[in-house]
Amino acid sequence: MSGHVIALCGGVGGAKLAFGLASALPPEDLTIVVNTGDDFVHLGLHVSPDIDTVAYTLAGLSDRQRGWGLAGETWNFMASLRALGGEDWFQLGDRDLAMHVERTRRLAAGETLSEITAALTAALGIRHPVIPMSDRPVRTIVQTAEGELAFQRYFVGEQCRPVATGIRFEGAAHATPSPGLSAALSRPDLAAVIVCPSNPYLSVDPILAVPGVRAALDALKAPIVAVSPIIGGRALKGPAAKLMAELGVTPGVIAVAKHYRGLLDGLVIDTADGGETAALRTAGVEPLVTEAVMISDDDRVRLAQETLAFCALFGATATSRRRAS
Amino acid sequence: MSGHVIALCGGVGGAKLAFGLASALPPEDLTIVVNTGDDFVHLGLHVSPDIDTVAYTLAGLSDRQRGWGLAGETWNFMASLRALGGEDWFQLGDRDLAMHVERTRRLAAGETLSEITAALTAALGIRHPVIPMSDRPVRTIVQTAEGELAFQRYFVGEQCRPVATGIRFEGAAHATPSPGLSAALSRPDLAAVIVCPSNPYLSVDPILAVPGVRAALDALKAPIVAVSPIIGGRALKGPAAKLMAELGVTPGVIAVAKHYRGLLDGLVIDTADGGETAALRTAGVEPLVTEAVMISDDDRVRLAQETLAFCALFGATATSRRRAS
Repeated sequence: MSGHVIALCGGVGGAKLAFGLASALPPEDLTIVVNTGDDFVHLGLHVSPDIDTVAYTLAGLSDRQRGWGLAGETWNFMASLRALGGEDWFQLGDRDLAMHVERTRRLAAGETLSEITAALTAALGIRHPVIPMSDRPVRTIVQTAEGELAFQRYFVGEQCRPVATGIRFEGAAHATPSPGLSAALSRPDLAAVIVCPSNPYLSVDPILAVPGVRAALDALKAPIVAVSPIIGGRALKGPAAKLMAELGVTPGVIAVAKHYRGLLDGLVIDTADGGETAALRTAGVEPLVTEAVMISDDDRVRLAQETLAFCALFGATATSRRRAS
Repeated sequence: MSGHVIALCGGVGGAKLAFGLASALPPEDLTIVVNTGDDFVHLGLHVSPDIDTVAYTLAGLSDRQRGWGLAGETWNFMASLRALGGEDWFQLGDRDLAMHVERTRRLAAGETLSEITAALTAALGIRHPVIPMSDRPVRTIVQTAEGELAFQRYFVGEQCRPVATGIRFEGAAHATPSPGLSAALSRPDLAAVIVCPSNPYLSVDPILAVPGVRAALDALKAPIVAVSPIIGGRALKGPAAKLMAELGVTPGVIAVAKHYRGLLDGLVIDTADGGETAALRTAGVEPLVTEAVMISDDDRVRLAQETLAFCALFGATATSRRRAS
């Protein structure tokens, strides 16, 4: 496939596919757009969890055992903060802390999140553009039976325990796509948009909630393909399946396809879900069945290459396929 | 000696005597007042170097080899910040960082520096009150042949290299003594004020520059005694001697006595300066000659006890002595 590719992604799962895409494509052919709905100010520091996960993963610095943060991290700041009686429900590693302190300092100095992300990812040796979805604040709020919870309070503080009844994106109405996202969406050589295997509700929906993004995607001639974050009815990581069940949806690839109704041309699913291909076609989405679990770097690159090849199959007919769905 | 004691102190040298005084006196008999002219906002964090040095020293957590910061400190935050291209001229240890982050968070939440210092020192297990000189910002500015430098830029950034021509305390005119300092100064049982062996120009003068402090000290019946930070014409640590020479003063205990003209009843000096006793008396200051170098904890406690006993000698005649000088 020739032309530019946009990857929309959230945290861990999305970052793995972004790593694969960055291995498969040169920097000028890929724009990695990252959810910032998880961002929050903690201890006065601006934390962008998904941007950092993507950055650490692309730079090969992420901790694969723990599943988040930096490999070889130390926790002396947290130990000291705890001893001082500070808030310790959100873990900040000593090395990781530099990202938050430097980001916060630059934001206070008037730089945009896009500018800061470009500088910090470049400093980490990342050559592919990593772009926040917006430079304005959009905050994911989980509505639960116990009241509304800011995303990190729900995700980290409460370990996703409260029963979700809905999700809203505070500030989305006043947000605008980041300059990098706008520019990528209007590229004449845009060849595909890939929705990475991130939580559809919590990681991808915030991106789609930024005014103008969904409309631009709907108007796109290039194919839009997602990689399912749900495999065999379960999420590999995170609360996607639990959330689907709580919102009255049977967790599975059909639910993913229906959630993205009208957006997708294709959906990459795991062999565990190979029995759903007919149902997916009925739902208007063309399936690609493959090994979708990414353990090794090779898995990431192979899945990225297969997804890119799958996108290439749609060609210029993509828009009409989506319109027909 | 019975009654309450106020210790005025800056960083390392002052903190050592404060440790000795805290060993010699129960918490209700001692108020440790700390210079905040060194405070600055770095990377968006409110750093109070002298408060932290005093706190770490009192808590037995300070690094004796390095002379500042915490023992067993790690530096992974700094390494990461450096890799990101952040400012790395001021070293912030991973454990130390928790103090600055928590202080900054609490200041932003509307707490005063006094309240925060009380909470953080209590969390470190310190039972004696540690009081900032003021809750309002006073910033020491060193005037040099190369222009004005904020204190930490001069002290850490430039390693005290530029030739000083003067010193001013920005904001001092609008500052007020902290509630703890005001309360201690007006205690009817105030028995002594001890000026710790800190830099007279950079650590003690900022305290004296807070409106009302010098006048309250001048009106005090209780004796005021300093421990000389200059021994044998040299400062044990820091730029005091270099600064004196640049400001046209011969570094020595006589210069210390003259600098504090009218303030002191007595000056504790080292045996190395035993030849200056007559000159000190001529300058209106009663000397106590002892071993004034503090290496071990025992040195600190002994010097504190000797200084307290020295104060007790002055009794109620202190004010008239000072007036006579």
